[in-house]
Parts: sequence; structure tokens; C-alpha cells
Amino acid sequence: MLRTGGLGAVAATTGAASWDRRAAPTVVLVHGANGNGASYAPLTAELAAAGLRTLAVDLPGHGASGHFPASYQAPQDLPTFAVERSPVLARITLADNVRHVVGVVRRVAAHGPVMLVGQSMGGATITRAANEVPHLVSRLVYLSAFCCVRFRSVVDCYLSPEGATTLIPLIPSVGDPQRLGVTRTNWRSADPAFLSGAKAALAAEYDDGAFRALLNGMEPDESAAVPADDARGEAHTWGRVPRSYIRFTRDRALPLALQDRMIREADAATPGNRFDVHSLPAPHVGPEDPRPLAKIVAGLAYRR
Amino acid sequence: MLRTGGLGAVAATTGAASWDRRAAPTVVLVHGANGNGASYAPLTAELAAAGLRTLAVDLPGHGASGHFPASYQAPQDLPTFAVERSPVLARITLADNVRHVVGVVRRVAAHGPVMLVGQSMGGATITRAANEVPHLVSRLVYLSAFCCVRFRSVVDCYLSPEGATTLIPLIPSVGDPQRLGVTRTNWRSADPAFLSGAKAALAAEYDDGAFRALLNGMEPDESAAVPADDARGEAHTWGRVPRSYIRFTRDRALPLALQDRMIREADAATPGNRFDVHSLPAPHVGPEDPRPLAKIVAGLAYRR
Repeated sequence: MLRTGGLGAVAATTGAASWDRRAAPTVVLVHGANGNGASYAPLTAELAAAGLRTLAVDLPGHGASGHFPASYQAPQDLPTFAVERSPVLARITLADNVRHVVGVVRRVAAHGPVMLVGQSMGGATITRAANEVPHLVSRLVYLSAFCCVRFRSVVDCYLSPEGATTLIPLIPSVGDPQRLGVTRTNWRSADPAFLSGAKAALAAEYDDGAFRALLNGMEPDESAAVPADDARGEAHTWGRVPRSYIRFTRDRALPLALQDRMIREADAATPGNRFDVHSLPAPHVGPEDPRPLAKIVAGLAYRR
Repeated sequence: MLRTGGLGAVAATTGAASWDRRAAPTVVLVHGANGNGASYAPLTAELAAAGLRTLAVDLPGHGASGHFPASYQAPQDLPTFAVERSPVLARITLADNVRHVVGVVRRVAAHGPVMLVGQSMGGATITRAANEVPHLVSRLVYLSAFCCVRFRSVVDCYLSPEGATTLIPLIPSVGDPQRLGVTRTNWRSADPAFLSGAKAALAAEYDDGAFRALLNGMEPDESAAVPADDARGEAHTWGRVPRSYIRFTRDRALPLALQDRMIREADAATPGNRFDVHSLPAPHVGPEDPRPLAKIVAGLAYRR
């Protein structure tokens, strides 16, 4: 009685009991810019409650190896913050991220199928990882993520008419990215213009307290090279892996029209293997309540 | 060939291939003071690579619902930071944490055995959770965590001769805990005395960059009530669950002598079910490299 009576919201709503759990993949999650694996704790907790094994990657130079300049502590030394070197991320390219994620996929493939989930710029990494090990990936899942086929890079996506409405420019970078080798952001700023701009771009629907918790999880430094690197999926490798797109319909950083253009271009490139498309009324960082997203992701993991 | 050739360090060192994975428990991790589930991303990634399903809990008022006062943004409004109310944590007791974790255990028990891991003050929560659902917990694992049997509470542990050498007093709290209802810490402070004290107490062995990344993951507010609440395990419930203790031998916050006294007192209370004891040369927050800890935890999960 306890075993069934103890089921919580997710397991009940996702119908986990009716799925074949032994065939379920490991869900590997790849974060976007200024993120890390830790940001997926609420989502992965829900997925575990639905019976899934998850692995949230820290890309190189993120997570425990993320760079928090000494000048980022308070009172912040802003002149130094504008010039302090970033030892690791200044050298990271998309190829490094892809190599890291491919290594993770190879490790967990020892335990069965692998479902590879990417959010935002993480989409560039999972796309190219699928170019390299398509046979090890049971499904690609894009969470309002970049999926380049005709666009060459993340930068090229933003240069499109659909990308032009992004509110990312409301999040000013600090210092000279060319000199720093990274794009640096002061997520600790109390400047009202910064806070309202970042909230509008990333999480307009969040309450202010949840937004500050979100800001605290952001990393100040991000590779300047990755968005400009070739992020294209190849039809004969990436294009053969089943894939799903979860549209975040309130996204103001990666506009919905751009998400839809990427879906269209991918489907045109591989008409025999089109995106399975879902939608959530979420902003760029995802829904404040992880359960609706977990329900979709778990449903994909258990799909036969 | 890819499936075996792709195995990384952990899977190789933990010998995952020889374990019966179907009998493996879900590993549920409970964080300590000022922490959250996100802090376990590096450890849970290693455990997933070893084939395990993991769930890192956010205790009430932590993680996405953690409280980051507006005055914590920079430049910090320190007079306000000393008095700004903490809406959730000021009301949280150990019973709330236990209720939350018991709920998680009941949910994941639908998928098989549950191994419950607690770190630091998380030990108080897993102990009392085991009082309530001992039949659902296959093993308790204490990571340099409080395990009270004769001691009534975490506070009582610190008042012992073995607890008196803790360096926790080197981490000053901000404001009046009685008035705030929480213990508040300014983890963003650049004050050299704060930084050196916190590092000595929590992570003396970390390099400065890793220590700042660690600080960024800390939450400023922590319940003032939890450490004073009754945290005792009962012999006829908690005392029947197999348990392991992973001693962190370089811990300066929860001194090794106090860890060992708690192990002795627990074993005296349940002589037929003694601690299985392991040791790691780690500071209070755990080892900078998660792999040796993952190896021990995975070994316990796969033990028959």
C-alpha cells in the first residue's frame, strides 16, 4: 500500500507505472550559456521521481570549475572585474564542449540508451555531439535550444529577422570581451536597469525572489568563441536521430519565431525524420515549476 | 566495442559492470546547512555514470525557493541585509524537513529500494526520516553528518568537548538571528577575515577559485530552529536500517572526534546493527574531486 499510496504528483501525472522502465534511457542534460549542471536539480529530481536516471553535465569551465573572479565578491571591485582574466573559459570552443559531452555519452551508454537534452546554447553542443555518436543517442531533445542546420552558428541565428527581437542586449556585458576572451556579466548587480532587463529577457514571469535565486545560480563568465563556432547538424548523422523540440512560448531571449524557423529548417533538411514538437508557456530559463517540463521529458524517455 | 571502450574513470574504478543494476537503489541525497540539491551536481553525475538513479533534494526554503534578499545584490545594502525578513525559512523546523524527505522517499520507493544519503545537518533529517519510514530505506549513508542518538540535537553535539574545536564560529552571521528567525551569512563578502575563516572551516584544501565557486553556491539564509530540534534516531526504527558513515578526516567544521563519538554512540545503541565506516581525506563540504566519494557511495548502492 505504501508503495502506491506514496506516489507523488509527477509519478502519478506521467503514468510512470505503465512504462517499461528497463528500456528507459539515461537522460543527459546540457546547459546553456552562463549555466551549469546544478541548475537542473529541480528538474532532475522530478525525473528521478518518475523513475529515470539523469546526468546533468557541467561543460568545461562551468560548475565546480566555473570562474568567479575575486573582484566579483562584495564590495565588488568593478574596475578589476572589467579586466580580470578568465583562465579556462577564454580558451574553450564548441569543439571542447562537444568532446566533453561525447565522453559523457560514451560512459553512460554502458548502461543503456541515452537521451540527450540541450537547453539554449546547449543545443549547439548536443547537435554536434549527435554528429559524432548518433548510434549512441536514442533521442535529442531541444529545450528552447539552438538547432542549426542552415544557420551556421548561434550568432548567425541572432542575426536573422526572427532573432532580431531578442532581449539579450538588455543584459549588458562587462569589460571588453575581446580582451577578456569571455563575455562577462555581473549577475549580482542591484542596478534597477540591469535587473529589469535581465528579468524581461530571461524570466519575466518569475516572482522577484525566485528571480534572485536564479541570478545566484548564474556564472559570470561565458566563452566568447562558442556562439560563433559551426554548430550545424549533418543530415546523415545528427539527422537520423529521433528528435523533439520543446518550444518555450514566452521566451524573449530565443524568440519563438526563431525556435520555429529552426524547427522548419531542420525538418526540411531531414523530411523523413521530423521534429516531434511540444510547447510550454515558459520563459527562456524554463518554467518556474519543473513538473510540466518533467512530464514532457519523462514521456519522451518512456516512449517506445 | 564502443560500449565498453567508452567507459570513463568512475565506471572503471567502481567496477559497475560486475554489479546487478536492477537491484540498485535510488540514491536520495539530503544537503546540509546553507546548501541545496544543486550542490550535488558533480557527485550525482558520477553516480549516474556508474549506472545509478539519483535524486538530490531541495529542503523547504532552499534551491529554487532559497531566499536571496534584495539587499544581497551589489553594492550590498548591508544595514538592510542585517534586518530584511526571511519569509519561508524563519518558519521551518526539522519536522518540516523530515516531512519533505519522507514524501520524496515514498515517491521514489515506487521504483525500488531507496538509499538515503545525508551530509552535515542533512544527517538530522535522514535520521528522523528513518524513524518514520525505516521499511522504505535500504541504507542510510552519513557524509560527515550529524547522527544523534544520545545527543539530542545538532546544537548539543557542538556543545560537547569533541564539538568545541569546530571552526564554524569563524563564519560570522549577519544581524540578529532571533529577530530574523534565520542565521544569515554574507557569502559574497570580500572581507579577507571572512574569506580565510570560511575557507579554514569549510574547505581549507580547495584552491581559491574553486572556493569562490563553492561560495557562490551557498545560500545566505538558514533556519535557526533546525539545529536545536530533536534529531535523535530511535533504536526500533532508525536503528534497524543498515547504515554507513563516511568520515571526512579533514573536517574542521564537524570535527573528526565528534564524527567518531557519534559513530560510537550509535553503535552502542544498536550493537546488532553497527555502522559500516569509511574515511576520505576531505574537508566539511566534501572532496574537490567527487570521484573518490562517488566510488564509495556507488559501492554501497551496489552492495548485496
